[in-house]
Amino acid sequence: MLKGSCVILQSGGPTCVINSSLAGLIKEVKKHQDVILSIYGSLFGIDGMINDNLIDLNAEDDKQIERLYLTPGAILGTTRHILSSNFDDVEYHKIKQTLQKYNIRYFFIIGGNDSMDTASKMSKYLQKEKYDCIVLGIPKTIDNDLDIIDHAPGYGSAIKYISNTLSEIEYDTSSYDRGRVTIVEIMGRDAGWLTAGSKLASLKYHGPDLIYLPEVSFDMDKFLKDVIKIYQKKKKVLVAVSEGIVDSEGKYILNSYKYLNTNDVFGHQQLGGVGSVLANIVKEKLDYPVRSIELNLMQRCSALLASKQDVLEACNLGKYAVEMALIGTSGCLVGYNSQGNLFTVELDRVANAVKKFPISWIINGNNISKEYIKYAKPLIKGKNCYKETDGIARFAKFKKISVK
Amino acid sequence: MLKGSCVILQSGGPTCVINSSLAGLIKEVKKHQDVILSIYGSLFGIDGMINDNLIDLNAEDDKQIERLYLTPGAILGTTRHILSSNFDDVEYHKIKQTLQKYNIRYFFIIGGNDSMDTASKMSKYLQKEKYDCIVLGIPKTIDNDLDIIDHAPGYGSAIKYISNTLSEIEYDTSSYDRGRVTIVEIMGRDAGWLTAGSKLASLKYHGPDLIYLPEVSFDMDKFLKDVIKIYQKKKKVLVAVSEGIVDSEGKYILNSYKYLNTNDVFGHQQLGGVGSVLANIVKEKLDYPVRSIELNLMQRCSALLASKQDVLEACNLGKYAVEMALIGTSGCLVGYNSQGNLFTVELDRVANAVKKFPISWIINGNNISKEYIKYAKPLIKGKNCYKETDGIARFAKFKKISVK
Repeated sequence: MLKGSCVILQSGGPTCVINSSLAGLIKEVKKHQDVILSIYGSLFGIDGMINDNLIDLNAEDDKQIERLYLTPGAILGTTRHILSSNFDDVEYHKIKQTLQKYNIRYFFIIGGNDSMDTASKMSKYLQKEKYDCIVLGIPKTIDNDLDIIDHAPGYGSAIKYISNTLSEIEYDTSSYDRGRVTIVEIMGRDAGWLTAGSKLASLKYHGPDLIYLPEVSFDMDKFLKDVIKIYQKKKKVLVAVSEGIVDSEGKYILNSYKYLNTNDVFGHQQLGGVGSVLANIVKEKLDYPVRSIELNLMQRCSALLASKQDVLEACNLGKYAVEMALIGTSGCLVGYNSQGNLFTVELDRVANAVKKFPISWIINGNNISKEYIKYAKPLIKGKNCYKETDGIARFAKFKKISVK
Repeated sequence: MLKGSCVILQSGGPTCVINSSLAGLIKEVKKHQDVILSIYGSLFGIDGMINDNLIDLNAEDDKQIERLYLTPGAILGTTRHILSSNFDDVEYHKIKQTLQKYNIRYFFIIGGNDSMDTASKMSKYLQKEKYDCIVLGIPKTIDNDLDIIDHAPGYGSAIKYISNTLSEIEYDTSSYDRGRVTIVEIMGRDAGWLTAGSKLASLKYHGPDLIYLPEVSFDMDKFLKDVIKIYQKKKKVLVAVSEGIVDSEGKYILNSYKYLNTNDVFGHQQLGGVGSVLANIVKEKLDYPVRSIELNLMQRCSALLASKQDVLEACNLGKYAVEMALIGTSGCLVGYNSQGNLFTVELDRVANAVKKFPISWIINGNNISKEYIKYAKPLIKGKNCYKETDGIARFAKFKKISVK
């Protein structure tokens, strides 16, 4: 069995449970300190490896490790840095120096498809260099677009937030007798998984009347007809729309309909999302009262509303990665399959691949089928019992002691 | 003691706990059904009285009444209708007809300053008409701008949501090494109470770096200097800004800086808030990476993150209103004073008055003092244990059986 240190990286966009996987990893590694002698955290993903910017995770208090389970953000810091395709690039050399300096033989990276690309390159580079090191990926992404695995940690919490928030918005907007179109913009540039999650509100309530995903081309006239039909029937229309909806030519609706001139006081272009664009068009064309709501960062950082199932799975995947590493598995991603069992899959099969939302689960271009509900329902199960002091939730704080 | 029925109204913008007050009222009235013979709910506030649109609250299941404590929105429906100043207006006549038809002798209205105006007019009109009826107001407003009382139910939950969400955003945005200005737009058109609540994040974390309220005039150059100073020091700037900030002439910043021409594809004006305006200006003038986040409806409907203290007080105020009614108190609002004791105040003293945020609690025009923290800390105490099924929170559903 390979003796040496381990390093853990967080990479890509944060989720509610990227820290849960970290906690699972740390706790399991600590049980095997006869083999894995030190636990390092690389600050800001692969950048910490390149710049020799590691911290000692053994120095962090157990209480703070426990708090990681419900701490938003990526506590080690993250990055969107993509490694060069050329192994002669100096950054690889620097990474190898860091590995050697700390005798790192176990390399764990928690991330999405881009991060699995980093893991895959690392694995190949180290094999080429004949540097003995286990490389394993632990999945995370609110987008749920990682291929092969059934679902990615982070997704369950995001759709739990989205579906419960949609329910709250449904109750709030039902308070008035007057008509109202409410357009909720949800993340997901290229895949509709997150926006589809809004449908789970219908498990208990009416849920969104109309749901638009990037997988089906968006027709503005059809949209307005959809809205009119529901408005005339019940005066309240709740729309869930993905930020990445596209027209029949594949162009983002946001870009097609954005302001033709850049003409505010400073002559620059307006920031803002497709929800606000659609709201403007509803107001202009139909003159219905309308409001747009962007769920924004909250859908990926509302740790207080995280799914218990998601937190548990994220943690288990961290633990499982350590177990797999100790039996010599390398160059793989760990994950759950559709039977709910843990398994591993070669990094090359998931790196950079994008799992689209199944077209067959989209009804009439504006709704989501029962098959999706069946798939997603288990992912949002359970709520967590977080601690608070003075009314403010307690998140983990790390000392981050540099080992340089 | 006056024998007859009672009616309950909800009025003005919903809060997380407007239904908690309703629950408190219903449960207490049910204990006195020897005197208060029936419990009616008026649908959509005073409109239900004008249009004879009442439901039988006795017909609702106890389980649903219990669920009211954590149900967002106003379950009876609400209105922004303001009664005429002229008692000869036909709407008064209609209201009196409804009162007589159901022998209503107890009139409870849960609402903010506009709603207390309704209550006050009702009280005076019924005195003039010599129609014996107790009229009592129960406060609610996320804006906390009701005068005389120490704080309004709804405010505690809103600032608990705001401060915890700001903490989550702080953790999320700290995940990246790169610089970032994050501007969070918070409700409060005329008073800065809600935006000030963001400061409570500093009880446990750094909290917002800059806080701008409508009570102090907003200077764009000063704002940019504030941002530069913090950005240069730590690369991350978290700004909390009230939607209602104004310039030195009292004009809304949103209006002063909004797009001079109306020039999107349909030639109409852009919806959107002051957070997005400031983000545009930061990008244009400083070229810093910037994101704006609008907390939108979530700050008034996130029942799952409501303050336990707030829910408890809202409920107690409903209960107390019934107790006061039964000893003959009328024409008053019930509330908590600064010692935490229940008391009553004449409706005329609160109707239409606006309690501004104290200028002395604002530091340098961009921060909030410890006096505010001391004031607000008790209001966000405690979290609630809500029920969920299939991962979706269970909110109350009413049968709403018409009594017409």
